[in-house]
Amino acid sequence: MTLLPGSHRQIVLVARPDGLPVPSNFAIRRVPIPTPSEGEMLVRTLYLSIDAGLRGRLVDASNYAASVPLGGVVRSLGIGEVLESRHEAFFPGQLLVTETGWQEYAAVGPGSTTRVIDTAIAPAPAFLGVLGISGITAHIGMMDLARVGVGETAVVSTAAGAVGSLAGQLAKAAGARTVGITGSAEKVKVCLDDYGYDACIDYRSTSDLSSALAEACPDGIDVYFDNVGAEQLDAVLASLAVGGRVVICGTMGIPPGVVPMGPRYERALLARRASVQGFIWGDHHHRNEEIVASLTERYRAGELRHRQHIVHGLEKAPVAFAELLAGQNLGKTIVSVD
Amino acid sequence: MTLLPGSHRQIVLVARPDGLPVPSNFAIRRVPIPTPSEGEMLVRTLYLSIDAGLRGRLVDASNYAASVPLGGVVRSLGIGEVLESRHEAFFPGQLLVTETGWQEYAAVGPGSTTRVIDTAIAPAPAFLGVLGISGITAHIGMMDLARVGVGETAVVSTAAGAVGSLAGQLAKAAGARTVGITGSAEKVKVCLDDYGYDACIDYRSTSDLSSALAEACPDGIDVYFDNVGAEQLDAVLASLAVGGRVVICGTMGIPPGVVPMGPRYERALLARRASVQGFIWGDHHHRNEEIVASLTERYRAGELRHRQHIVHGLEKAPVAFAELLAGQNLGKTIVSVD
Repeated sequence: MTLLPGSHRQIVLVARPDGLPVPSNFAIRRVPIPTPSEGEMLVRTLYLSIDAGLRGRLVDASNYAASVPLGGVVRSLGIGEVLESRHEAFFPGQLLVTETGWQEYAAVGPGSTTRVIDTAIAPAPAFLGVLGISGITAHIGMMDLARVGVGETAVVSTAAGAVGSLAGQLAKAAGARTVGITGSAEKVKVCLDDYGYDACIDYRSTSDLSSALAEACPDGIDVYFDNVGAEQLDAVLASLAVGGRVVICGTMGIPPGVVPMGPRYERALLARRASVQGFIWGDHHHRNEEIVASLTERYRAGELRHRQHIVHGLEKAPVAFAELLAGQNLGKTIVSVD
Repeated sequence: MTLLPGSHRQIVLVARPDGLPVPSNFAIRRVPIPTPSEGEMLVRTLYLSIDAGLRGRLVDASNYAASVPLGGVVRSLGIGEVLESRHEAFFPGQLLVTETGWQEYAAVGPGSTTRVIDTAIAPAPAFLGVLGISGITAHIGMMDLARVGVGETAVVSTAAGAVGSLAGQLAKAAGARTVGITGSAEKVKVCLDDYGYDACIDYRSTSDLSSALAEACPDGIDVYFDNVGAEQLDAVLASLAVGGRVVICGTMGIPPGVVPMGPRYERALLARRASVQGFIWGDHHHRNEEIVASLTERYRAGELRHRQHIVHGLEKAPVAFAELLAGQNLGKTIVSVD
C-alpha cells in the first residue's frame, strides 16, 4: 500500500523559552507526508503524551536528553497507527506507543520506547498514562529505587499529577502511609478521595510547609518521590527519617539551565544516612514489560485510579503543555490529534 | 583479681566549640578508677582513635550520634587491656577495641564496636586504622555502597587521610582510576608515591578546583568518596558521570550545626541519574567481620599502605584532635595513653 502524496501539520520550536514555555515559542507548519525508509514505518499520530520533562529539552542546556533544535519538530511520545511498514515486525493497522513528535504523521523506526498496544485491555490513551510512561516511571521510582516498604511513610510531590498519583497509589498498595503535596484545594480533595492518600498538603495555602509535613509525618519521612525539587525538597529533608530515600523524578520547581542556591544537603544526608537519587525512565526500559504486566493486572482489577485531561487538536499541544507547567491540569495531559 | 583503689585521669568537655574545637574546650580531671558492674569489664586504655567525626558530637545539634554533655567524658573508640572481667566472654589480658572514651581506665560492657584483637597480626594501633574503623569505613563506602568498578574513575577527598588513603587504595585494587583531593604539596606527593593515586590535586593551591578535576577526570567521575562536602562536592558534581555515585562519609567542610547555602544539586542528580548517599560505619557492624578479614588478608600481603600519626599522652588528645581538623596530620591520628 502506498499512501497518496499529501501534506500534514507539525509543530516546531521557533524560540527558546525565556522562563516558562509559552505558546509563542512554537509554530505550526505544513510539510509533505514523509516516506518511510527501509526498517521504518509510516504512522498516523492519534495521541500525544504531554510531559513536564519536555521543558528541559526546549532550552540549550545540559540535560539528560538532547535539546530540540530551533526549527525542529517538538519531540514527544505518542500513539500512532501504522499505515505502512517497511519493518518485518510491524504491519498496517497496529497501534504503537512510539516517539511520534508533535506532528500528524511520522516515519519512525522502532526505538526503545516502541511498543504495540492492545485496546482490548484499555483505551489507547491509557498506554501513555497509567499503563505507559506515567505508570512505569512511578513504579521505577517508588518500587525499584526507593523500595518503599510496609509501615513506612512516603511523601509524593505533584501528588495529583499523572506520575505522582500513581506513585502514591503504588506506595499505599505496598503498605506505606502516603502523604501528598499538591497545589490546590481541589487537588487535595482528589488526592484524598480518589488516590487514597492518608494526608495531603496544599503547599500554596501553607505558609510553613516544613511544619505541615512534620505534623503530617510524625514518624519522619522514609521515602520522598520528588517531582519538584527546591523548597519542597528542603521541607521534606527537615523531616527525613534515618535511612530515608529521596528519588528525584522531576525538578519542576527549578527552571532548566538555572542552578539556584539552597541550603546544603550533605550534612542532613550524613546525619540521617539518607540517599538522594535522580532517575529517568529511559534508563530502565528493560523493566518495561514486567512493570506494564504488573500495572495492567492492577488496572484490570480496578486497583489503580487515574485521570486523563484530553485536549483535542494538534494545534492545542503548546497550550496544553503550558497549562501542565502552570499546574492547571488534573491528571495525565494527552492531546488527541483528531 | 581486684584492683587496688586509685585514681585516674579523664578528659571532659567544658565548653562547646564556637567554630573549630580548641584545646580550651576540654579539661582534664582526676577521678576514682571505676568498678565494673556485672557484665562489664575494667579496661586500661592503651590507645585512642582520633576521628574527625567527634566534631559533630561536641555541639548541641542534630547528628547521627548523641552529643557529649558538658562535663562529660569525651567519647572515643580506643584499645584497652582487660584488667578485670565480670563478663563471661572476656578475660584479663585480652586487648579490645571498644568505646573507652578519653580516659585512662573505663568500665565497659561489650558494645557493637567491641572486638578482641590479635597483635600477632599487626601492632595494636593498626586495629584503630587500617584494620579498624578507618579501613572498615573506607570499605563500606567505596565497595559496599559506591560499588566502584573496573575502569571507573573514583575521586577521594582528604585523600591522604586515614580513611581517604584506604578508600583510594581499595578503589585502585578494584580496577578504578583514582584521583585524590588533598591540602598540601607534601600530601600530594604521599598520595602519588605511597597510595597509588593516578592523579592528585592540592585544593589549597588550585584556584579552580572544578577545572582541575575536569582535567584530571576526562571521562567524568563515576564515584566520589566524600569526606568534606561543600565546595569540593560542588566541583565534583560538575564533572559527575551519568550513573555517578557520591558517598558522604564526612562533611569536614561544613561546621556542625550550620547549614550553609550552596548550589542546588537536584537538577544535576536528575540529569546524570546520579545518587548521593550518606553513611556511617555504625550502621554496618554486621559487615565488620568479613571486611576485617578481607583487609587483614591484603594487609598481610603488603597491599595496603598506611601511615600512623601517634601522639603520646592522654593530655595531648585535644591538641591532636585540633591538628587533625586543621589538616596538620598525615595518616591516622592515634593517642598513645602512656
